[in-house]
Amino acid sequence: MQNLKLIVEYDGTGYHGWQVQPGLPTIQGVLQEAVKRISGEEVSITSAGRTDAGVHALGQVANFCTRKEFTPDRWQRALNGLLPPDIAVCRVEQASTDFEARRSARDKTYRYTILNAPHPSALERHWLLHIPEPLDLASMAEAAATLIGEHDFSTFRAANAESPNAIRHIYEARFVAEGSRLQFIVTGNGFLKHMIRIMVGTLLDVGRGRLTPEHFRQILDSKDRRRAGKTAPPHGLCLMHVRY
Amino acid sequence: MQNLKLIVEYDGTGYHGWQVQPGLPTIQGVLQEAVKRISGEEVSITSAGRTDAGVHALGQVANFCTRKEFTPDRWQRALNGLLPPDIAVCRVEQASTDFEARRSARDKTYRYTILNAPHPSALERHWLLHIPEPLDLASMAEAAATLIGEHDFSTFRAANAESPNAIRHIYEARFVAEGSRLQFIVTGNGFLKHMIRIMVGTLLDVGRGRLTPEHFRQILDSKDRRRAGKTAPPHGLCLMHVRY
Repeated sequence: MQNLKLIVEYDGTGYHGWQVQPGLPTIQGVLQEAVKRISGEEVSITSAGRTDAGVHALGQVANFCTRKEFTPDRWQRALNGLLPPDIAVCRVEQASTDFEARRSARDKTYRYTILNAPHPSALERHWLLHIPEPLDLASMAEAAATLIGEHDFSTFRAANAESPNAIRHIYEARFVAEGSRLQFIVTGNGFLKHMIRIMVGTLLDVGRGRLTPEHFRQILDSKDRRRAGKTAPPHGLCLMHVRY
Repeated sequence: MQNLKLIVEYDGTGYHGWQVQPGLPTIQGVLQEAVKRISGEEVSITSAGRTDAGVHALGQVANFCTRKEFTPDRWQRALNGLLPPDIAVCRVEQASTDFEARRSARDKTYRYTILNAPHPSALERHWLLHIPEPLDLASMAEAAATLIGEHDFSTFRAANAESPNAIRHIYEARFVAEGSRLQFIVTGNGFLKHMIRIMVGTLLDVGRGRLTPEHFRQILDSKDRRRAGKTAPPHGLCLMHVRY
């Protein structure tokens, strides 16, 4: 029996998120089906982040246990040979028996990419949120910085979120501007349902001048979802990296 | 009557190239249909480069004449409001009456992007050619440099190409490597049918060690299509810029 750790890249456009849902295409479902075709095993593949429908990953981490005596390299080739082109296994390695992609994760880094230009992008429309109006980047960066540290993030969670507590530690929350691309990079020990997307929606309200960075801080402190902005669409979001 | 110059970006994946073909989706066809819906006019939109099926553009240039008294900005908004998300008009400007996107072009720059990594890309599969085996970049760059200057490019043209002569001037032909991305950047006063894609297919033979840069030069000089490599697939190619 070996415990395999996978690094997975995917274009979430055609999927109802990571987690298996009966009758719907999901990343987990497609990966488990590929394993079944390779080894005949009905495995359960766990991931570090259960990405929502339409969210992408460049560095998702997953693991599963198998009795098939393939080397990690052979597993990678076999999986990539069967997976559709919008899912790719970037690396397979043998992990210790107690490694669990979700529970062992120390922190995760996500990126949300905004195209701040008058016209949309045709070629990169799948992972850019297009915002035509000018954004006040300095205020957005100032507001983002208030997210850093340990906070109760009830303000930035979906109404139907399941986690019993909303306290998370954010280590990094910053904007990187490169031409008309604006990336929001956020690293934390965990994220609530829709947390990053609601953060981005609210940071965009700061960028548009509807909120000041001080309002943003008050909204975070209020723990009141109704005071936050809209949930930004999923396609701008990408899971970049998981640290163990 | 005004002559409008458009800068157009498109994801060529879903199209049978630029040029109108009865019953098939083409970039020109979709743009002309949008103009018809805006002004009622049946225009013919000319482009600088007649890109093949599956080829993309970030800086295609096109022009058409209209009697509709919209400002260029209003034309841009009206077009982007009607175009599908895989075609975007980045700019509209008024051109002089004698401006013709194709004939007035001085040179065009294309980019062909290769992902030289063991595994494919899920997120950027639409515009990266995946080459898993290691490539000898120094030899590829040396071979590419032999393309620069005025040559008869009969070696690098499709068997059914129509142009009466195959002499073109290449001003720039170089590789830019960034991590596992390898971009072939080529600028010339004109390109024959499939010319860049056959060049790339032959340069990949150099990268794999099947040909030396000296062989490559001899193949160019031979004017014999049968000695060149395979036509690289269209999806790695993108029209970047047209100079007037």
